Amino acid sequence: MYDISIKGGLCLVGDEFTRANIGIQGNRIAYVGREDIRGEVEIMADKKLVVPGLFNAHTHLAMTVLRGYVEDMPLMEWLRRVWEIEARLTPKDIYWGSILGILEMIKTGTTAFSDMYFHMDEVARAVGESGMRAVLSYGMIEKGDEEKGRNELETGTEFIKEWDGAFSGRIKAVFGPHAPYTCSPGFLMKVKERAEELDTLIHIHVAETKHEFEEIKQKYGKTPVKFLDDMGFLSKRVIIAHAVWVENEEIRILKKRGVSVVHNPVSNLKLASGIARVREMLRAGVNVCLGTDGAASNNTYNMFEEIKLASLLQKVATTRADALKAADVLKMATRNGYVAYGIEGGELKEGMLADIILLDAKSFNYLPLYNPLYSIVYAGYGCEVTHVIVDGELIMDDRNVLTIDEEKVVDRVESTVSDLIEGLRPRG
Amino acid sequence: MYDISIKGGLCLVGDEFTRANIGIQGNRIAYVGREDIRGEVEIMADKKLVVPGLFNAHTHLAMTVLRGYVEDMPLMEWLRRVWEIEARLTPKDIYWGSILGILEMIKTGTTAFSDMYFHMDEVARAVGESGMRAVLSYGMIEKGDEEKGRNELETGTEFIKEWDGAFSGRIKAVFGPHAPYTCSPGFLMKVKERAEELDTLIHIHVAETKHEFEEIKQKYGKTPVKFLDDMGFLSKRVIIAHAVWVENEEIRILKKRGVSVVHNPVSNLKLASGIARVREMLRAGVNVCLGTDGAASNNTYNMFEEIKLASLLQKVATTRADALKAADVLKMATRNGYVAYGIEGGELKEGMLADIILLDAKSFNYLPLYNPLYSIVYAGYGCEVTHVIVDGELIMDDRNVLTIDEEKVVDRVESTVSDLIEGLRPRG
Repeated sequence: MYDISIKGGLCLVGDEFTRANIGIQGNRIAYVGREDIRGEVEIMADKKLVVPGLFNAHTHLAMTVLRGYVEDMPLMEWLRRVWEIEARLTPKDIYWGSILGILEMIKTGTTAFSDMYFHMDEVARAVGESGMRAVLSYGMIEKGDEEKGRNELETGTEFIKEWDGAFSGRIKAVFGPHAPYTCSPGFLMKVKERAEELDTLIHIHVAETKHEFEEIKQKYGKTPVKFLDDMGFLSKRVIIAHAVWVENEEIRILKKRGVSVVHNPVSNLKLASGIARVREMLRAGVNVCLGTDGAASNNTYNMFEEIKLASLLQKVATTRADALKAADVLKMATRNGYVAYGIEGGELKEGMLADIILLDAKSFNYLPLYNPLYSIVYAGYGCEVTHVIVDGELIMDDRNVLTIDEEKVVDRVESTVSDLIEGLRPRG
Repeated sequence: MYDISIKGGLCLVGDEFTRANIGIQGNRIAYVGREDIRGEVEIMADKKLVVPGLFNAHTHLAMTVLRGYVEDMPLMEWLRRVWEIEARLTPKDIYWGSILGILEMIKTGTTAFSDMYFHMDEVARAVGESGMRAVLSYGMIEKGDEEKGRNELETGTEFIKEWDGAFSGRIKAVFGPHAPYTCSPGFLMKVKERAEELDTLIHIHVAETKHEFEEIKQKYGKTPVKFLDDMGFLSKRVIIAHAVWVENEEIRILKKRGVSVVHNPVSNLKLASGIARVREMLRAGVNVCLGTDGAASNNTYNMFEEIKLASLLQKVATTRADALKAADVLKMATRNGYVAYGIEGGELKEGMLADIILLDAKSFNYLPLYNPLYSIVYAGYGCEVTHVIVDGELIMDDRNVLTIDEEKVVDRVESTVSDLIEGLRPRG
């Protein structure tokens, strides 16, 4: 008798869909196969697709409260407006923004995410209550100021010590130095040393825009990835978000050092950053995962948009209709995220953490279901997700999120936002 | 007393959202304003956004039956497989494929579409039963064969004579010569003359791929738009799909001749065709609308994907975060489609046809609702559409499609497809 059994679904096992039953014991997958199994909770899945949960590998979760606040402006003007409102954010805003973001993630099949922001205790609290899995980091900005650097590193370290492993291991706390253009080489190397001492990871923005690429080259005489490698910063502990502007040699460096890359296709278009060379990175053997970035530059946490767009952008950028295949992009959105952050999930396999989603195989946009991979990757809206299991717990049942009161979220987000922007309402 | 009243919604009137009541009489909008009005049917819209219905201006509707049949292949191999199955399509496949496509359109807020395919009587029947509005054309391919040309033009003409104005005007039947690389100049000019005689329009693919651009240039010594203009083909009667490969002079020609362009961003990426110069076309004053293209090259008929992607692609292609603004892209998806095809709709204004959709203003992905335009354009999934009115008839009520039996569609599509691919099932 398992804690949960998922019966008769069309399951993604390895790279193939096959009919199988899945047994969950505690927070792990204990059985995948054809035997008739029983569970304390039984989920009938004969009209479902069963796939590993999605891993959103780069977010600024609470930026939901800024979603749609300002749009369609030149980047510098947009940033000024975003910073103006970010400076006002209170712990209450961060908490409700996080709950709203997690609600959207659960509704669209995300079971784990990696976040970098501030007031991170509030994010951790939201993760704990909602039943989600998350990698969390306090975003450190030092700008060459030694005292600020000491304080930031202290805050980051305290956060890790307080939260790493919390909620039966659902939270993994790591370091989040913002970027090479907001942190000095000296500070970055201190973060690296501290990460080794604490045996933790480093989540950082690198080579997002052409502007950054040129700025680092001018200041240090090297392009961003090369610059970080030459100082000895890069290793398997490092997960870099974006990597839009990388040269061939830098792709080889990422592979050699075991650095994971988070591709954020929607955000890279919306902020006019460019199209990352995902095909080349994958072919070089780099572990590339997928993320949404923050809600202000996207504006959703719906990973199905990233999955489809990631594939489409590689096709147009390389003029090859077969540039990035459905199976590979779905793996980027699942397994590769878990691998990047050292979490044993992202596959329907015995021994893996039980982070699993069910999709409605009869959804009109999936029909006819020649190959479920193609339906999910090229025709997925996100709304087909019916059940979500994280760490062995059912947190969405037939589209009802069991851990969050949806109506309350609407009310509280509206009231917290109305306080936030008082006297600031933009003209459009 | 109106036939239908929509009360208290946040309505898109002109370019602004404002609280208003809308009264519908027959198939037209008869009132928009603040007065308290009554209706035989009353829709409470205090928690809704009310906007004009979306116009999907370029489709091959029944290709839903090919959705996900083959993917991720080099273009020529993909086309070979698609043609192999297209050659087998029966009227029954076309009918159920059309119903499935229309179901998806209604569920995601499309109130009108422009289609080019074959067995078009079946498409017309599906449009009639479902309550949708459509511009339909029989896709004519002549390839320089005079006899084939006569037959194709005859089929196209008969279709127009039989169906134009059917279902109280919900069907507009027009000509659909496939493209300048599949139809000779002589044939295209015969179509033009016939269109003038019948006072109808011409829907045609032009300048979709670089390959076509080069082929036309080599064959006729001119690039596609210039070639069509020099022979006297272009006028206000002509709606061209794609226009990805156009030169500056050709943009000026499109404006001068009053030609409308249908931009299909998802399809243009998926088939690796390129990124159309939408910003330049709009700035030159060309009427640009939006479409999904056929389900095999997309793979959905969800216009919310096109809306977001159209804006994002212009931002990255021009490196301007303000390249295509939310209000303009929503207008492309609504008003511009109605204008292109000469149908009096796409605006919430007295006298317009009553093609209207309601969206859930409290949907988690829309929050916080600083500006509904931004929520719709940058955070819309399509699943927020709750009510759809076409030609003054309510055809979706609180997400229940009143004109189509959804469960029956699933069964019939599955069985028709199983007959279709018997002996052909692809390896993936």
